[in-house]
Amino acid sequence: MGQQHTAQGSVAPGFENVRDELEAVASLEGGDYAAQLVAYHHGREVVDLWIGPEITGDSLTGVFSSTKGAAHLTLALLVQDGAVDLDRTVSHYWPEFGAHGKQDVTVRELLAHRAGVVGADTGFTPEELADDAVIAERIGGQRPYWRPGTAFGYHALVIGALTGEVARRVTGTTMRELFETRVRAPFQLDFFMGLPEEHEHRFLTTLPMRPTPAQQAELDAAATGPDSLTGIGFNRNHPKAAELQELPNIPVIRAKGPASVGGVASARGLARMYAAAISGLDGAPPLLTPDTAAAVGQIHSAGHDLVTRSHKVFALGFTASAEDYPVLGQGAFGHSGAAGSEAFADPRSGLAYGYNRRRFAFPGGAAPENGRLVRAVHEAATS
Amino acid sequence: MGQQHTAQGSVAPGFENVRDELEAVASLEGGDYAAQLVAYHHGREVVDLWIGPEITGDSLTGVFSSTKGAAHLTLALLVQDGAVDLDRTVSHYWPEFGAHGKQDVTVRELLAHRAGVVGADTGFTPEELADDAVIAERIGGQRPYWRPGTAFGYHALVIGALTGEVARRVTGTTMRELFETRVRAPFQLDFFMGLPEEHEHRFLTTLPMRPTPAQQAELDAAATGPDSLTGIGFNRNHPKAAELQELPNIPVIRAKGPASVGGVASARGLARMYAAAISGLDGAPPLLTPDTAAAVGQIHSAGHDLVTRSHKVFALGFTASAEDYPVLGQGAFGHSGAAGSEAFADPRSGLAYGYNRRRFAFPGGAAPENGRLVRAVHEAATS
Amino acid sequence: MGQQHTAQGSVAPGFENVRDELEAVASLEGGDYAAQLVAYHHGREVVDLWIGPEITGDSLTGVFSSTKGAAHLTLALLVQDGAVDLDRTVSHYWPEFGAHGKQDVTVRELLAHRAGVVGADTGFTPEELADDAVIAERIGGQRPYWRPGTAFGYHALVIGALTGEVARRVTGTTMRELFETRVRAPFQLDFFMGLPEEHEHRFLTTLPMRPTPAQQAELDAAATGPDSLTGIGFNRNHPKAAELQELPNIPVIRAKGPASVGGVASARGLARMYAAAISGLDGAPPLLTPDTAAAVGQIHSAGHDLVTRSHKVFALGFTASAEDYPVLGQGAFGHSGAAGSEAFADPRSGLAYGYNRRRFAFPGGAAPENGRLVRAVHEAATS
Repeated sequence: MGQQHTAQGSVAPGFENVRDELEAVASLEGGDYAAQLVAYHHGREVVDLWIGPEITGDSLTGVFSSTKGAAHLTLALLVQDGAVDLDRTVSHYWPEFGAHGKQDVTVRELLAHRAGVVGADTGFTPEELADDAVIAERIGGQRPYWRPGTAFGYHALVIGALTGEVARRVTGTTMRELFETRVRAPFQLDFFMGLPEEHEHRFLTTLPMRPTPAQQAELDAAATGPDSLTGIGFNRNHPKAAELQELPNIPVIRAKGPASVGGVASARGLARMYAAAISGLDGAPPLLTPDTAAAVGQIHSAGHDLVTRSHKVFALGFTASAEDYPVLGQGAFGHSGAAGSEAFADPRSGLAYGYNRRRFAFPGGAAPENGRLVRAVHEAATS
Repeated sequence: MGQQHTAQGSVAPGFENVRDELEAVASLEGGDYAAQLVAYHHGREVVDLWIGPEITGDSLTGVFSSTKGAAHLTLALLVQDGAVDLDRTVSHYWPEFGAHGKQDVTVRELLAHRAGVVGADTGFTPEELADDAVIAERIGGQRPYWRPGTAFGYHALVIGALTGEVARRVTGTTMRELFETRVRAPFQLDFFMGLPEEHEHRFLTTLPMRPTPAQQAELDAAATGPDSLTGIGFNRNHPKAAELQELPNIPVIRAKGPASVGGVASARGLARMYAAAISGLDGAPPLLTPDTAAAVGQIHSAGHDLVTRSHKVFALGFTASAEDYPVLGQGAFGHSGAAGSEAFADPRSGLAYGYNRRRFAFPGGAAPENGRLVRAVHEAATS
Repeated sequence: MGQQHTAQGSVAPGFENVRDELEAVASLEGGDYAAQLVAYHHGREVVDLWIGPEITGDSLTGVFSSTKGAAHLTLALLVQDGAVDLDRTVSHYWPEFGAHGKQDVTVRELLAHRAGVVGADTGFTPEELADDAVIAERIGGQRPYWRPGTAFGYHALVIGALTGEVARRVTGTTMRELFETRVRAPFQLDFFMGLPEEHEHRFLTTLPMRPTPAQQAELDAAATGPDSLTGIGFNRNHPKAAELQELPNIPVIRAKGPASVGGVASARGLARMYAAAISGLDGAPPLLTPDTAAAVGQIHSAGHDLVTRSHKVFALGFTASAEDYPVLGQGAFGHSGAAGSEAFADPRSGLAYGYNRRRFAFPGGAAPENGRLVRAVHEAATS
């Protein structure tokens, strides 16, 4: 019991309270809570903690939509290179995308979840969902569910396939390979878009949510049908659809690592990636210039999200993290994941943050405990 | 008592629970609750029920804004024919509409409640409100209450006059006549835009809302002045304005049947119209091609509605019904009415639904009981 | 006690209940509550009241953002003259503003809080904040915090400097001088953008908010970091930033009177200005034609405000006052201030309203008591 709520790993001087907060979270969560928390400050690791049964700092789990951060950091590099122009239409790079009233949608609008093609009319099998080429081909030709320019909604399971197709048309290389070459390998990140066999032994399956009866009632009250826009957005409209929380547990998803939700990482991988992005690591310069970091951190969509049916604020391929954690600075950008993970860079404070948990948190998406953990990390970094 | 809460009419095998649900609603509503509920599945009638004193399956009541569904199904036919281009400006068809900064408003934007001319600066008498030509002329020349392109708001009492004027300029025929010729007569729908004298004997007056003290307090707290945007939108700014709930009870309104709110129908008429639209009836093909149905079901406005002062999601001249009833499929389109009526087509499930009640429901608009009734019908249709 | 809650001054016949309401507010507020309330109806003063210790009808206090009403009434005159075209880009008049993706932002969009430059990346000292030229130069060259065209947010401390720079480029004269010459001096308004030494003896310092413990908890729960978008928007990101509530108490702010928040006025000054705008005073015609009044009262932004993190509706450089006080008419325009002041013109009823209080109200912005006071004034005017 007591043991279970003792965090392993290390913190830099001044960050001791972060360990206390993580242990306090564990003691509230109880049971088999297992999580990792890592932070960098100006490129220096300041927090490297893990807690709970089975997990270590080396463990890997499915990070769901935190994968989008990897995909769109990669795309940001292409923009920085001048290879992709955000204000060009998607159909300029990928003509087939122009069908059914999408001919004027720009790369920028696609990244801001404004294109309106959030899923497939008939859904995807898990095998299809593992293959970004299939997703892109299926969706590229569809009619958008809302009129582009009038609304936005989270392209939960498909955005990485769509932005990845733009990257592929421009470079001839898949998003996965681009990420591997330009981001993962140079920094030896524990963050895989497609988990190689040799790392499988470090993978921990995602465990399903365990809602309380009151939480279950809340979920039931918000339930939507499989053919609703939300159902399509989360691929509940295919008769053989996998449960969202099972995705990383399906070998083909994990192995192929689709760019929207298929990533596997440790919190170290998450935090190191964002540190590499804005601060640089081990003497290497940051991947993004301040100008590019500001461009992808700029808010592009704010208000009612038609898919999640809630208030959202998106930056460019990332979420605007300071909207969720208002201790952070304007321009912070990152991405949470369905099981509860969170990861971001905060250029104004120089922080990079990665959090991972094994069991799906209620209600899905960034786990609530990130609120106090982010606060603790930020306070230690800025005081 | 018990008798009053026994539904009359019939349901197809498998839809028995719909009757139970309607009776459960009646038992909760009590008193003089009188309603009709009809549903079609892939063009086949599966529910035809009525309940309560005085009412039968043949009774007609004012369906208020459900009339907009009739008007905009008619307009969709003109779009399908190629006679009206959604992306042309309204002023292309109707030059006078271009005044005061409205010259760039498209037919699409008008249908999406984005044009900003939600009422008349000085309001309408009931006689004026009965006459779409008067409404169109009065409003066409006005300054919009918000800058077109920046917001949207429900054009509650006038949108049918404005879209009808577009139709009239293009065809030389009024919306009422177009609806009669192309939609009502071919299917002998019990849905009239302008009630002929020979059907008057089937008309039941709308009865006023009977709010509880708590409901009245809620209404009072949300009250708006007659000259507010909401007041203008519901024509409370004319000294001789009729109460909204009295509109169908005023003979001239009922007789002329203005295209925004003047329709008179039974639930059979409502449901049959949407079945004709997406499934066809009695061997006739559907009025709308799948492509046109998808075009009018596409979401065009989502967020804060400046007139109703609440969150709304509009498709193209219709509401996006699945936003209100998330068991339905993406692309469902229809329209509720102020007294509590609801009607829609759900192309993904093949359902067409019509519900009508005689006494105004709290708080106005689609009556809350539609939630459970829609669920019951959809469950029966898809299980 | 009793004395403290007795209002001084006069009301026209029929407006007696306004005095009762103000006294009722004072009795609820208690302690050192001190306020002024003035109203005009069709250009005639109908309410001139003050209540509480130290204050008289001649007292002046900082009116914070109600200053924006003075600035943008001035700008409206330039638009009415044809000197400024709302649909031209800001960079047409002020080329340096076009940097970093702002080249297409129009004057209209700037006035509607849509430009995205809500503060300075590194904040302002109080001396800098007092000088609109410094603000304009610093911010004009910045990257917007959101993509212009996709969102809006309150430019709390800077909008007057930006619109003022447009006015200065066009006329060669500062906003302050334009206001003085064209608005303040002709009507001898007790409303100063830059308080002259000879009026200093009438100035009462703004007193800080005194939240209850429950209110403090609410403020704490909504707290945002100094580098968040909200923090930047309220200039909490400068190490030497003054507390917002202290601004008018800082001599240089009061003396220079920056056009966003630096104004000093009595309620007489507030109300008289709006009466001059729409009704005219003392035989002079109204400053604004009905057409210009309608143009500035037209809604331009509605929904989620990224800076205040709340629902807002803006007209053109003003707030759409009827959204906050729905007894008012469509087209009412005005501006509240952080300490609790409120002021507006309601063209449909002919009302002009000014309210001022000395102690900062919870939670900041238009004080809640304006709700009942506006209702009382409007009811007296229209019955």
